[in-house]
Amino acid sequence: MNMPSSLPVVRLKPKANARAIRHGFPWVYDNELVTDRRTKGLAPGTLAVLEDDKRQPMGLVATNSKSRIFCRMLDRNVGASIDQTWFAAKFTKALQMRERLYETPFYRLIHAEADGLPGVVVDRFGATAVVQPNAAWADALLEPMVAALVEVTGVSNVIKNGSGRARGLEGLEEDSAVLIGTAPAAPVPVVMNGATYMADLTGGQKTGLFYDQRPNHGFAASLCKDAKVLDVFSHVGGFSLAALAGGAAEATAVDGSAAALELAFSGAAAAGVEDRFSTRKGDAFDVLTALNEEGARFDVVICDPPAFAPSKPALEKGLRAYERVARLAAPLVTEGGYLGLCSCSHAADVTRFRGASLRGIGRAGRQAQLIHTGYAGPDHPLMPQLAESGYLKSLFFRL
Amino acid sequence: MNMPSSLPVVRLKPKANARAIRHGFPWVYDNELVTDRRTKGLAPGTLAVLEDDKRQPMGLVATNSKSRIFCRMLDRNVGASIDQTWFAAKFTKALQMRERLYETPFYRLIHAEADGLPGVVVDRFGATAVVQPNAAWADALLEPMVAALVEVTGVSNVIKNGSGRARGLEGLEEDSAVLIGTAPAAPVPVVMNGATYMADLTGGQKTGLFYDQRPNHGFAASLCKDAKVLDVFSHVGGFSLAALAGGAAEATAVDGSAAALELAFSGAAAAGVEDRFSTRKGDAFDVLTALNEEGARFDVVICDPPAFAPSKPALEKGLRAYERVARLAAPLVTEGGYLGLCSCSHAADVTRFRGASLRGIGRAGRQAQLIHTGYAGPDHPLMPQLAESGYLKSLFFRL
Repeated sequence: MNMPSSLPVVRLKPKANARAIRHGFPWVYDNELVTDRRTKGLAPGTLAVLEDDKRQPMGLVATNSKSRIFCRMLDRNVGASIDQTWFAAKFTKALQMRERLYETPFYRLIHAEADGLPGVVVDRFGATAVVQPNAAWADALLEPMVAALVEVTGVSNVIKNGSGRARGLEGLEEDSAVLIGTAPAAPVPVVMNGATYMADLTGGQKTGLFYDQRPNHGFAASLCKDAKVLDVFSHVGGFSLAALAGGAAEATAVDGSAAALELAFSGAAAAGVEDRFSTRKGDAFDVLTALNEEGARFDVVICDPPAFAPSKPALEKGLRAYERVARLAAPLVTEGGYLGLCSCSHAADVTRFRGASLRGIGRAGRQAQLIHTGYAGPDHPLMPQLAESGYLKSLFFRL
Repeated sequence: MNMPSSLPVVRLKPKANARAIRHGFPWVYDNELVTDRRTKGLAPGTLAVLEDDKRQPMGLVATNSKSRIFCRMLDRNVGASIDQTWFAAKFTKALQMRERLYETPFYRLIHAEADGLPGVVVDRFGATAVVQPNAAWADALLEPMVAALVEVTGVSNVIKNGSGRARGLEGLEEDSAVLIGTAPAAPVPVVMNGATYMADLTGGQKTGLFYDQRPNHGFAASLCKDAKVLDVFSHVGGFSLAALAGGAAEATAVDGSAAALELAFSGAAAAGVEDRFSTRKGDAFDVLTALNEEGARFDVVICDPPAFAPSKPALEKGLRAYERVARLAAPLVTEGGYLGLCSCSHAADVTRFRGASLRGIGRAGRQAQLIHTGYAGPDHPLMPQLAESGYLKSLFFRL
């Protein structure tokens, strides 16, 4: 047990926003802490007691002296033991909601701060869980965390996915491994919105699968009966396979990754809709330009690009990229047809992203109604204090 | 045909935002126009040609000298004839989308500006359409509009609902009537999300039915399996009947209107779930207070109050009312349960409404995850230029 007395102490500067932290804000930035030599020397992942500038304890935090987010709140109770029992309580609460929402065990089980495990992401694919410990403390406490995960969910296989941008911001190295059981030998079929997706959890391409767009796939599918559909930046076929499940006449997936398109095709075949499905490999901007030159037209066009504005410095450039996507996609939509535009950029809020999309649509000489604004599904909850930064936005327009 | 030369001209002041109007903003406020005696004397509803300050025609507008919104853009083509054919084109386009989205003819068919008919709302209940001509021009052109509505949709009955706040802002009087066919003698059953709602289109209580919450009812229902549910400000049972259709163990509807609760009960009976349904008549704040005193607990609580902040001057007071709803409702939710909070206030944007809700939840001593942010359904499209004012917000929290 981590007795409070055995833990180091980190202390807020008087100017830090102690009130926000008391009201639930989960982070302390490095410039809000008194950082003496001892504090700077804390090994990344060290647990500590956070005190306000009057030396009143505020909670148990995970520290990372190499990250801008120096402290992440783990427990308001400074006497809490961050052990398997503690992790099991978090997994149990998270699992209750997912089991209520989904009939089969395919979902994001832990969405970091909002599910009480700061920086940690766990996606579940039936008997296999993929853990992303994107914060130093979680790397350090991986063993009790994984033990609790197995205890609560009963999964047979646990894979650590230690790649990605978030780890870099924490000063963590890439490190992926099979922690429990074995990695699935073949892509795992995942059924969402009536479509079958193939999730390659360990293949060389690490295509994986994203659960966040599930409700937006569902909305798109409701527009697609008998429609000719174009799915740009398709990854493993997120929107196109949902469209076919929704009765689309035909769907074309465009992506730069041959491996992703192959999995998309496998998914179409598994659902028996491969005769209505085609793929086009290439840079999405190039393919959009080519389709415009060919005079191609679709009833529904959906573009779900990677994060063009992952951080504030990249915002302006990212917004121009979103505008360009809209400008190239809008002319491909038939009169009275539908255009879905998505952004998974933290830095571009929904107002800015909508503005960029509308500038692009306007420059293409089209007018639009906005018929739907969607976010990530409920297995991606938000801390209300971080709600403005909800990263996924999905806008559907009728042109 | 309205030849341009036969129409009066209204002209923008040099300082007016002609660019915004060119880019699709649909309104001209009274202080943006050169208002000489002739302009001021235009009868409400008069069609006119809008010119910029250089006397370049910008479009055909409907004017109302008695409204702050002096001009509403009808057609960018100043030579357009606003006749039955023109209306039929609008109805046809709007109908195409609704028929794509909904299996049965129960939806909002026309949502004002976004569907090309400024200030006009048309709700369809099978063979009956209810028209709200909430702008002077639509009152004046009701005859060709209704003829086109019948021509395109084939409805047998058209009812004019000329009540409500919007008409007052336009200087229009209350005026309701059966325009075509007959009013349904009994409440019309409407099936949404597997639940049956009773819509009283003409009864003395004018309870009607709101389609806008349909997707949020659906989301709530996905949380309600085996749950004990409280539906506050229930109207005709929007959330509670959807919850029962989603498998709720029991649902209680609270409303101040006995007529609305009676219709809710009829709906429950029509769906065969009345044994799991109860109602509690009374002021919602009083009932919430009483339930707190009784120590009542529910797995899911949803509050869908009337617009507390219908206009900017009412904003602060309205936000306090939303906070109070959240503060009274949160303690009724079991640990790990769900709280849905809705606002249909134009003036309270989603950020402000979320803030007020969180203050209330915090004051009740509860912590929350935000799991869903929903808006009105796609049969309530938005003009992108007016998207910030999307009035309906529905937030679901897990406590």
